[in-house]
Amino acid sequence: MLPFENLISIDKQKPTPAFRQITDQLIALIRTGRLKPGIFLPGTRQMAQMLCVNRKTIIKSYDEMLGQNWIETILRKGYRVMTDLPLLKPRSFQPRTSFSLESEQQRLRIQRSLPIIDQREIKQSDLVIDDGFPDPGLSPCKEINRVFGEDDKNSLFRQLLPQQPQGGLHALKEATSTFLNDTRALNISTREIMMTRGGNMGLYLAANILLEKGDQVALSATSDLNATGVFQHAGAQLLFLRSDEQGIDTEHLEMLLVTNKIKLLYIMPHCHYPTTVVMSAQRRRKLLELMICHRFWVVEDDNGYDFHYQGGPILPLASSAHNGRLIYIGSFERTLCTPARVGFFVAPPEIINRANRLQGLIDLHGDTYMELLLLRIITNGGLERHIMRSRKMYAHRCESICAMLDKRLGNFITYEMPKAGLSIYISFNASFPFDKFIEETTAKGLFFNGIVSLYNGEKAIRFGFASLSIKEMEKAIEVMDNAANHLIKTRRNYLINRAPIGAISA
Amino acid sequence: MLPFENLISIDKQKPTPAFRQITDQLIALIRTGRLKPGIFLPGTRQMAQMLCVNRKTIIKSYDEMLGQNWIETILRKGYRVMTDLPLLKPRSFQPRTSFSLESEQQRLRIQRSLPIIDQREIKQSDLVIDDGFPDPGLSPCKEINRVFGEDDKNSLFRQLLPQQPQGGLHALKEATSTFLNDTRALNISTREIMMTRGGNMGLYLAANILLEKGDQVALSATSDLNATGVFQHAGAQLLFLRSDEQGIDTEHLEMLLVTNKIKLLYIMPHCHYPTTVVMSAQRRRKLLELMICHRFWVVEDDNGYDFHYQGGPILPLASSAHNGRLIYIGSFERTLCTPARVGFFVAPPEIINRANRLQGLIDLHGDTYMELLLLRIITNGGLERHIMRSRKMYAHRCESICAMLDKRLGNFITYEMPKAGLSIYISFNASFPFDKFIEETTAKGLFFNGIVSLYNGEKAIRFGFASLSIKEMEKAIEVMDNAANHLIKTRRNYLINRAPIGAISA
Repeated sequence: MLPFENLISIDKQKPTPAFRQITDQLIALIRTGRLKPGIFLPGTRQMAQMLCVNRKTIIKSYDEMLGQNWIETILRKGYRVMTDLPLLKPRSFQPRTSFSLESEQQRLRIQRSLPIIDQREIKQSDLVIDDGFPDPGLSPCKEINRVFGEDDKNSLFRQLLPQQPQGGLHALKEATSTFLNDTRALNISTREIMMTRGGNMGLYLAANILLEKGDQVALSATSDLNATGVFQHAGAQLLFLRSDEQGIDTEHLEMLLVTNKIKLLYIMPHCHYPTTVVMSAQRRRKLLELMICHRFWVVEDDNGYDFHYQGGPILPLASSAHNGRLIYIGSFERTLCTPARVGFFVAPPEIINRANRLQGLIDLHGDTYMELLLLRIITNGGLERHIMRSRKMYAHRCESICAMLDKRLGNFITYEMPKAGLSIYISFNASFPFDKFIEETTAKGLFFNGIVSLYNGEKAIRFGFASLSIKEMEKAIEVMDNAANHLIKTRRNYLINRAPIGAISA
Repeated sequence: MLPFENLISIDKQKPTPAFRQITDQLIALIRTGRLKPGIFLPGTRQMAQMLCVNRKTIIKSYDEMLGQNWIETILRKGYRVMTDLPLLKPRSFQPRTSFSLESEQQRLRIQRSLPIIDQREIKQSDLVIDDGFPDPGLSPCKEINRVFGEDDKNSLFRQLLPQQPQGGLHALKEATSTFLNDTRALNISTREIMMTRGGNMGLYLAANILLEKGDQVALSATSDLNATGVFQHAGAQLLFLRSDEQGIDTEHLEMLLVTNKIKLLYIMPHCHYPTTVVMSAQRRRKLLELMICHRFWVVEDDNGYDFHYQGGPILPLASSAHNGRLIYIGSFERTLCTPARVGFFVAPPEIINRANRLQGLIDLHGDTYMELLLLRIITNGGLERHIMRSRKMYAHRCESICAMLDKRLGNFITYEMPKAGLSIYISFNASFPFDKFIEETTAKGLFFNGIVSLYNGEKAIRFGFASLSIKEMEKAIEVMDNAANHLIKTRRNYLINRAPIGAISA
């Protein structure tokens, strides 16, 4: 309720009677939009108390407003501001004609590439294919309940929370560094790690700490626009690297290094986003050589390390003998579950100190509840158990979806069976009516979150299979198959008559 | 476990026997720090499977390493890398001698003013006084359990989460704008609001969107270093405003405006952090005049609006007829409970669009779980009920702590009974041995999170009373009283012989 006692003042020295003063001020509140159409006024008794006047004064005032059609009585509910009032003051936050932002800085020109589906469009019966998230049903989310439901919650949080550790709970940094050392053969202590917020925070911190305006940044030409957006926001000049099924082309990088002073290279060697390509061992070795020789910084984004299906994972560059100018970032979000929006940021101690300070400016402290949960899951072995269990499940789902794709859509698409990660990169030939295809599937209640348009015109879907049941996969494939066949019937020549690569290599 | 199948390769063409190749490579792993002291090797059977060799080969290899003292056998547990190995390779993330960051940009020179207590120091029996947080016992945190425990959780989250709404769930924006319109007399729709992450994010976004390097920013001289840090990081030149018990000195601002082109004013009119001062109505009016005349931007930080104890709250500037160049920010963290780290950011639509994009670069999407929880609490009326209930409780606690302060510490301190918010600003005279006092209370297990050192040398404690029970208050006051009296005994002249202002005005 509005604080009417502060909004309405009654001056007893004035010749105007109190009820009229109140009426005038209430009408002014309605006119200026502070009292909005459809809002109920306080009851006469309550209003009289708030304004310290006799109740009769309020009744008189409300009667006056009823007469002027500003308010109406609703049976058993009270007095309501009329809903069809004309001519109210314009919203104060709407720009005026004299108001122009164009003349101001235009730093942020980046648009997200992936279409953000409007959340109001989706019905409960629809199926949304994500771009590679874990199955919430498999994740140890139940632990969240236990953490929140604990008896000693209050005292524990009172002890922990007010301290707002900027770089994350010390115990979590310890547990995470041990986890990374054990699984990725890193060699770090708590001085070389900090916890970040989920998603992009690690990349944002790295870019803003290392880059000055005009610095050159190299990254794969197939990188998603969010990464390029972060570097452009930091004022960097971007150099795009050719890349193929072995990852970024290190020869191209070497060539660029002859004429350019590259300050930073951004790379996702294990499972590139969005193409899911794993960088070959040969290229990795070459990259390490170039790093040491040319002394540029590398930001290595950990993606898909924990889930691999063909042989073991390949150790990150961060575990090799690099030149010390490397930042290794990742998040628990795509390993554990979506709400685990806590990331890690591994770097030399001096970089950690600066990243801590910058993160503190952006967001004083992290999600300490989730940090506590993660700490518990890592230290009691739950994380490793979760990874082992999920890996088996996801490998099965990966094989199933590949078999379905081959059988039903083999003629329209190209894909490689993923070596790691939680999604398949499905390419469509340039002549395929991709936009119409998406229109048809959307109309049938099938949404894709990972629609990719590459710089070379290639259209693809990053199809997250890990969170889907076999039944949901079948439904999705059914809809896709029908849509594609329908389009084919309309125009025969969309058919791409070649066997998918995945079918051969599988 | 490390992926040994990728780390160790056996070349059967080589003359060296397989067991020796394995041994050499394992020792190399230990030497380079990838296999760390104290780590257990896989069992011989498991290792043989991973490397696709006969188990006898592994046994031979382990024996060899035992002989060379690289590993040891632990009864019933297996083979462990020796814990006291000398001369390992240095950590790869430690800076080298040739590695220097000094030559690079030095953007971040800001240090936090408030001492961050090392979280390892605190024992369960200790008492931490925060700087003004709600009582976790009062907050509707139990709702979290319900949200996480829902049956339709999986399907709901699968529908919602992949869409990653950058500016927050649309439904939450709707609910929050209605809440703000109803309680603060704003006049906004969903186009003029976005949800931010908790803490500082709103301020960071505003500063980075509006400011260019060298722009002038005016703010109270008593602002905390985190706010000044954000503006300095954005490259702003700071102009500090004098302020007193009526808030910032608008005459000083007017004087500064004669000679300076101020781009932005940062202000917390309702309950300034850290001093808890509420800006007087006269100064607010003057400020609105100056805003319209000089066309600078205002960032209004909402703090303590929901909890007020003497009369009603004062409406924010955002509800007045301002010039449209105003950004109104706040967070549910200090109203509802600490884990509700979701904030709101109210601004003209064009600013909202840019803030959305920048926030997306920093952190793709917010904490959608918490957003769902908030949405539920706001729409079912739980938030307003929570505020009503808590306000009564906090008013009582506020009176209690003031009475205790008067009785036990009245001779050493000065404070004003707070009009709003969740903390009391307790000043200590410059001659009081404040640092020794803090040393003594810390030794007795009483920690303060809100220790303030002002530019004029004034020392103060921002004492959060809302989260304390009467018993805890008594304990805290007891410790403070004892510490102060002990210091007085040692040096008589610390005594400040004047009655506290609070005692008179109360």
